[in-house]
Amino acid sequence: MPTILFAAKSERWDQYEAPLRAALAEAGLADARLTTEADPATVDYIVYAPNSGLTDFTPYTRLKAVLNLWAGVEDVVGNPTLRVPLARMVDPGLTEGMVEYVTGHVLRHHLGIDTHLQGDGNWRPETTPPLARDRTVAILGLGELGAACATMLASLNFRVTGWSRSPKALPGVTCRHGADGLAETLRTAQITVLLLPNTPATEDTLNADTLALLPEGAVILNPGRGALIDDDALLAALDGGRIAHATLDAFRIEPLPADHPYWTHPRVTVTPHIASATRPGSASRSLAANIRRCEAGEPMIGVVDRSLGY
Amino acid sequence: MPTILFAAKSERWDQYEAPLRAALAEAGLADARLTTEADPATVDYIVYAPNSGLTDFTPYTRLKAVLNLWAGVEDVVGNPTLRVPLARMVDPGLTEGMVEYVTGHVLRHHLGIDTHLQGDGNWRPETTPPLARDRTVAILGLGELGAACATMLASLNFRVTGWSRSPKALPGVTCRHGADGLAETLRTAQITVLLLPNTPATEDTLNADTLALLPEGAVILNPGRGALIDDDALLAALDGGRIAHATLDAFRIEPLPADHPYWTHPRVTVTPHIASATRPGSASRSLAANIRRCEAGEPMIGVVDRSLGY
Ligand SMILES: NC(=O)c1ccc[n+]([C@@H]2O[C@H](COP(=O)([O-])OP(=O)(O)OC[C@H]3O[C@@H](n4cnc5c(N)ncnc54)[C@H](OP(=O)(O)O)[C@@H]3O)[C@@H](O)[C@H]2O)c1
Ligand SMILES: NC(=O)c1ccc[n+]([C@@H]2O[C@H](COP(=O)([O-])OP(=O)(O)OC[C@H]3O[C@@H](n4cnc5c(N)ncnc54)[C@H](OP(=O)(O)O)[C@@H]3O)[C@@H](O)[C@H]2O)c1
Repeated sequence: MPTILFAAKSERWDQYEAPLRAALAEAGLADARLTTEADPATVDYIVYAPNSGLTDFTPYTRLKAVLNLWAGVEDVVGNPTLRVPLARMVDPGLTEGMVEYVTGHVLRHHLGIDTHLQGDGNWRPETTPPLARDRTVAILGLGELGAACATMLASLNFRVTGWSRSPKALPGVTCRHGADGLAETLRTAQITVLLLPNTPATEDTLNADTLALLPEGAVILNPGRGALIDDDALLAALDGGRIAHATLDAFRIEPLPADHPYWTHPRVTVTPHIASATRPGSASRSLAANIRRCEAGEPMIGVVDRSLGY
Repeated sequence: MPTILFAAKSERWDQYEAPLRAALAEAGLADARLTTEADPATVDYIVYAPNSGLTDFTPYTRLKAVLNLWAGVEDVVGNPTLRVPLARMVDPGLTEGMVEYVTGHVLRHHLGIDTHLQGDGNWRPETTPPLARDRTVAILGLGELGAACATMLASLNFRVTGWSRSPKALPGVTCRHGADGLAETLRTAQITVLLLPNTPATEDTLNADTLALLPEGAVILNPGRGALIDDDALLAALDGGRIAHATLDAFRIEPLPADHPYWTHPRVTVTPHIASATRPGSASRSLAANIRRCEAGEPMIGVVDRSLGY
């Protein structure tokens, strides 16, 4: 039976120990050794948080795979001491949470909800928004999360366009890819949702040039990663008034420093990286299932392509 | 070819004349006489807004039906001079708009979006909400609008319970009816959505007794009608803190008077009866289709049961 090292901060262990033991048992791995401390030479799998302190994988001589505790792998994918498969988190709970966050904030902007939250005694019924069928939402990134969000928004009748690296087909969604596809997608995007991974190729996807392609009054929603946006360019576009609002959940530095202009900008909403949390229950089942697959010689779910960085 | 009297305020005529003529032509009624003024004795149908000034239907001796311009018929259903079938508005655009409003505001409360809108420089990631699958939403009224909202919320994984007068079955929705059904529904309702018509039987559906059944921290969303709520009881429950928030779109007096406590209550959001507007394009197609049906001797859509009041 395999030895599984849980390498993450101690709060995580408190959350994960019980559900992970239960999930391992359910996956037929009741006898696996799950521990937070082990002789590296005995470890088969590492359940891994990049902020755990573990950065040198060299001593883990019989390691079969590293299973990242969350979806973004930018802090481990370039680690030169990592020579075994790396799996990112693919978790139904994570996906559901992201669909709820994205759908909620897209509808918030679509309906203009913010304007009603400071009721001033003035009845202004003229604020009826268009129907979703007359509103175009662009989803940049059509992976596990982006595809689920695109599908939900399409079922609410939004005109959804999606963009990915490789060609995709999703029912009810206009799919584009590559550099030309991005420009075409942004030109009609009234609301843009960033669900790309943080890689060298996606850094500053929204910059002065691409922001200039967006239509007047565009809204940006970033539950992806901070590095996807050139912050100075976004602030300039918000100040210029062409971009109506940005709702941001991910930042280059987290926690977002208290003196960052995003906090007080009237056209910016900051959410503190809560778009979607990995949920210990469902995430433990995903981790256990992936270990079971690897033990059985089956392909793991969510294996990262190290050359692409995601 | 029938004569159709358009009885509504002149702004409505400006919005409806062109789409209604087009829809009549499409429905094979190009030769119908559509007018805002006619000898009552020549009129076959009245497209009707209760605030039009027309209240005596007696002179309309050859009238076949009255088609209400919106969904709520409380201001005409009791008119004793009305002796022909009354159809309320059933319009896909109206339904879509309501689904968007209800889904948007349910997600707003579910995600706790309001707390993020006054960013204060403090990063508080501990505010992760539960998943929708762990949140119970009750929809009171499972008609045209309520059923569509219930279905959409169920597809977002919310635990949806619905309540109606007669028994109903909706996939993914726990359906209840009658007085016992209401109490059972409210007891678990973390978010309650009112989509009942305004009738003698639905007045004060939420009153001191029924509000007391809701769980601590419950949220109320009323895009139905103002009379569904006993306002004093709601204000008391909000002040007591057991009801966390009420988002209200419909009021007993509209526009809501500027000095009404709802405007300034910290736990109340007022939207100015904009949850869903009848859209002239799709509504005109519904009106024309209903007239065509009546002319062909087919049953009309949305015929009101005068004894029930909706
Ligand atoms: N804020 C939060 O709480 C939170 C929570 C979870 C995840 N996230 C973020 O969300 C990101 C997406 O997660 P996921 O699970 O959906 O990832 P995923 O399944 O790997 O999907 C990534 C998507 O991005 C596309 N992509 C990658 N590089 C691209 C490029 N250069 N040009 C165009 N498209 C590109 C991919 O295209 P192909 O389909 O062609 O490969 C794919 O569609 C994560 O990386 C993480 O940063 C944030
Ligand atoms: N704020 C806005 O912008 C806006 C826009 C449009 C409509 N509305 C309001 O929304 C209401 C609903 O519209 P709709 O088109 O969905 O109406 P509908 O199709 O007539 O549906 C009414 C629903 O309420 C139920 N109901 C009626 N009386 C009841 C009672 N005494 N106890 C329990 N359930 C009862 C009905 O039960 P059964 O199924 O058993 O008949 C039905 O499910 C309208 O009447 C209008 O007031 C508001």
